[in-house]
Amino acid sequence: MKNKRIIVIGGSTAGPKVAAKSKRMNPNSEILLFTKGDVVSYSACGLPYYLSGVIDDIKKLIIRTPEEFEKDGIQVFLNHTCTKILPNSKEVIVNDKKYSYDDLVLATGGVPVVPRIKNIKLENVFYLRVLSDGVDIKRVMEKAKSVLIIGFGYIALEAAEAFLKNNIKVTVVENHPHIFSFLDREIGDFIKDHVLLTQSNNLNIITNDLVTEFLGDKKFMGAKTRNGHKIEADFCLICAGVRPNVSLAKGCGIDIGVTGAIKVDKKMRTNLPNIWAVGDCAEKHCLVTTLPTHAALGSIANKEGRCCAINLNGGNEQFEGVLGSAVTKFFDYTVGVTGITEHRAREVASKVNIEPISTIVTKHDKARYMPDSNPIKIKLTADRRSGRILGAQGVGLGDVDKRINVITSALQKQMTVRELLNLDLTYAPPTSGAIDPILTACYELQKLIDA
Amino acid sequence: MKNKRIIVIGGSTAGPKVAAKSKRMNPNSEILLFTKGDVVSYSACGLPYYLSGVIDDIKKLIIRTPEEFEKDGIQVFLNHTCTKILPNSKEVIVNDKKYSYDDLVLATGGVPVVPRIKNIKLENVFYLRVLSDGVDIKRVMEKAKSVLIIGFGYIALEAAEAFLKNNIKVTVVENHPHIFSFLDREIGDFIKDHVLLTQSNNLNIITNDLVTEFLGDKKFMGAKTRNGHKIEADFCLICAGVRPNVSLAKGCGIDIGVTGAIKVDKKMRTNLPNIWAVGDCAEKHCLVTTLPTHAALGSIANKEGRCCAINLNGGNEQFEGVLGSAVTKFFDYTVGVTGITEHRAREVASKVNIEPISTIVTKHDKARYMPDSNPIKIKLTADRRSGRILGAQGVGLGDVDKRINVITSALQKQMTVRELLNLDLTYAPPTSGAIDPILTACYELQKLIDA
Repeated sequence: MKNKRIIVIGGSTAGPKVAAKSKRMNPNSEILLFTKGDVVSYSACGLPYYLSGVIDDIKKLIIRTPEEFEKDGIQVFLNHTCTKILPNSKEVIVNDKKYSYDDLVLATGGVPVVPRIKNIKLENVFYLRVLSDGVDIKRVMEKAKSVLIIGFGYIALEAAEAFLKNNIKVTVVENHPHIFSFLDREIGDFIKDHVLLTQSNNLNIITNDLVTEFLGDKKFMGAKTRNGHKIEADFCLICAGVRPNVSLAKGCGIDIGVTGAIKVDKKMRTNLPNIWAVGDCAEKHCLVTTLPTHAALGSIANKEGRCCAINLNGGNEQFEGVLGSAVTKFFDYTVGVTGITEHRAREVASKVNIEPISTIVTKHDKARYMPDSNPIKIKLTADRRSGRILGAQGVGLGDVDKRINVITSALQKQMTVRELLNLDLTYAPPTSGAIDPILTACYELQKLIDA
Repeated sequence: MKNKRIIVIGGSTAGPKVAAKSKRMNPNSEILLFTKGDVVSYSACGLPYYLSGVIDDIKKLIIRTPEEFEKDGIQVFLNHTCTKILPNSKEVIVNDKKYSYDDLVLATGGVPVVPRIKNIKLENVFYLRVLSDGVDIKRVMEKAKSVLIIGFGYIALEAAEAFLKNNIKVTVVENHPHIFSFLDREIGDFIKDHVLLTQSNNLNIITNDLVTEFLGDKKFMGAKTRNGHKIEADFCLICAGVRPNVSLAKGCGIDIGVTGAIKVDKKMRTNLPNIWAVGDCAEKHCLVTTLPTHAALGSIANKEGRCCAINLNGGNEQFEGVLGSAVTKFFDYTVGVTGITEHRAREVASKVNIEPISTIVTKHDKARYMPDSNPIKIKLTADRRSGRILGAQGVGLGDVDKRINVITSALQKQMTVRELLNLDLTYAPPTSGAIDPILTACYELQKLIDA
C-alpha cells in the first residue's frame, strides 16, 4: 500500500485507537493526531475513582503517553484545535495552520449538556469529562462539606459514591420523575431505595424538579429549584448528559443523523470521501430496534476505532451496532442493562412492530445457603409475538452483570426466551444457584408469552 | 387430564423436581417418590461448604423437607429401595412391595467411581456424594491433622479448600499427568501453580501416580502409590469421579448409551413406554459435538426434571443438550469452562469434521488502574474452517465466570469468533476494561483463523 497521511482529530479513546492500530497495520503511513487537550489516550470513565481516592494518581488513567505514541512513529499535537475542514482540497486548519490529509478521522467526542440555569457561570461548578475536570474537583473536595449534583445517571452515581466516601454530603436534583431515567421506572426506584437506605444521613435525592438558578456571586454557594427548594452546597457537579461534539463536522457539510451525531456507515465512513468518524461523536445503530441511537462509552469507541483502522488500511470490517449495554456500581450495589427497556420498547413498538412484555424476578445470586449470597432483581423484556428477547435490566447487591452479559450474545443473535430456557450456564454454590436468576426470569417470561 | 400415578425413584435433585412440578401442573395426579436415603431434595454441591464451616448447619442444604412435599400432596418414602422394574405390568418392587405406575421416572443419580486399591475397605475412607457423607467427614475432621485426596477435580478442589481452612494438611494423588484432567493441560497447570503458590506448606500434589494400597488395619492410616510414595494421613477422600447409577434400569431392558448412562430422547423418555429418566443417571448430548456426553450437575438435573414434568403432563418440551459448562472456586481463585476443550476437540476432530485452533490470553478482569483488578487467563478454542467457537476455559483471581457465561449463549447459537468481535458487553472500570478479556481472546483467535 502506498504511504499515506492519516489525520486524526481527537485524543481520548477512539482517536488514539485508530492511530495506534493504523500504524501497526501499516508502519509506513504518516499519522498526525491533533487534540485540543494536554493529554491523549486516557480513561475518562476512571475519573470517579480518582475522586474517591481508589486511584491515588491521575496519571494512572493515562493509557499511553504522547511520548509512547511518538516512539511508535505517531505524531501527537497537544493543545491543537482543529477549526476547519476543507474537504475539497483534503486539508484541515489546525491552530491557524493548514495540513493536508489522505484520510481524515473525526474522533471529536462529546460535550456535556449545559442546562439552562440562571447565573451558571460561577467558580466551583464542574462537569466530569476530561482529566483536568478531575484535578479541579479533587482540589475543591479537600475543603468541601457538601455538593449539589444535577442529574442522576451512571457518572453521577459513581461521583456520589466518591463524595460520600470523602464525607461530603450529597444533594441530587433530577428533573425526571425517577433517577436513572434511561432505565425503567421500577429499576430507577430500586436504586433510589437502596441508595437512600444505605446513605440516608448524607444523601438527599430530589426528583421531578429542576435547578433554575445558582446562588453566589463569584463562587457557587447553592441553588434554587422550580419547586421552591433552596439547596446550599460548596460546589456543584453537572451530570446532565453528553451530546456529540459535531460543530467541526457540521461546518463542512458532513451529514448529521437524527440523534445529533455524525452519520456513518458500517465501515465508519461519513458521507464525504476519505472522512471517517468514530467514538462518541459518531452515530450508532441499535441492534435491537435497528434505529439510530446514542451511546457514549469507551468500550464502543474502542471497537469503532478498531473497525475504522482496519478499513483505512485496506481491510473490510463492519461495525454492526450496539445493544445499549451499560453497568455501574454504587459501593457493593450493581446496576446493569443491555438491549432496550420496556419503556423504550413501548415507545418504538408500532415503528418496529413489536409487542413488549416484561417480568421482574428477585433471586439470590449464589446458592441461597451461601452466607454471602445476595438477592438481585432482573427485569427481562421480550416481544410477545416472536418471543424474541428485547432487553434485560438488573440491580442488586450481588453479581448482576454476569447475568446481563449472558443476554448480550443472546440479543446479538436475536434469541427467543424459549431458546434460553435450557441454557447451560456454569453452576457452583459460590457463583450461582442451580437455577440461575436469569433462567428464572426466562421461565416467568415464557409463561406470560404462552398465556 | 385423567388422574394418573407417577412414581419417581430418586430423591436428590431431578426426582424431587419432577415430583414438585408435576403436582403443580396437575394437582389431581398421584405422586409417589421413593428414595433409599433418609432425606430428599438437597444440594450435594453444597457439601464442601458444610465441611469448611461456611455453612454452619447441614440442614441448610435441604431445599425441601419430606413434610413440605407431603403438604403439597406428594407421598415421600424415605429409606425405600427400588429393586426391580416390571415394565410389562407397569409395576416396581420397592422394599419387597409392589407398586403400580402409569408413568415411572428414574432419577437414580450417580455412584462414585471406586478405584482399584488394595485394602480399600477401611474406616475413615470417604466419598462426598450424600448428606451423610458430609456429616461423617465433618466428625473425623475434628481430630484429623491430615488427609489424602484421590483425584483432583472440582469437588476435590472445593474439599481441599475446606480442609485447609480447618488446618488439615492435604496430599493429593492424581493419576493423570495434570490435575483437572477434563480441562486442557495448561489450564490444569495454571490451577496447580496457583494452588501450590498459595498453599505450599499445607498442600502436596502428586500427579502421574496411582494409589495402589491403603495402610492400616481397621482404620485408614495412609497409602502407598505405584511410584513408591508412602503417604501418611488421618483419613481419605476419594474423588475419582461419578458414574451413572443404572443397575435398576439395566435389569429391565432399558437401553444404556455409550457413556454408560440411560439413553433418553429429547423429551427425557427411555426406550420403554412410560419410563423416563432424568438427572445424573440419564445420558446427555453435547450441543457442540452433537455426541453423547456425561455431565452430573444440579443445574442440568433441574432443567431435565422441568422438561420431563412438562411432557409427563401433556406438554411438549425438549431438552436439547448441554454445553459442558462448569465452574468452581478455590479461595478467591475461579476456574470455569463451557463447550469443549482443545484436547476434546482434537479427539473428535475427524468424527465431527472440525479443525481446532486455540489462543490463550491474560488480561485484567477490571480496568487495569483499579487496585482490585486481577489478571485472568482465557483459553478460547474454535473451528478454523467455519470460525465457529467450540469452547472457552478461564482461570484466575478475578471475575472469570462472567466471561465464560457470555460464551454459553454464543455456543448455543453456534456463533463464530467474528460475530463476537464487536459484542457490546457492559463496561465500567470496576467491572471490566474497555476491551473485555473475552474480546481480546476473540481478536487473537480471529487473527489465527485469518492467518
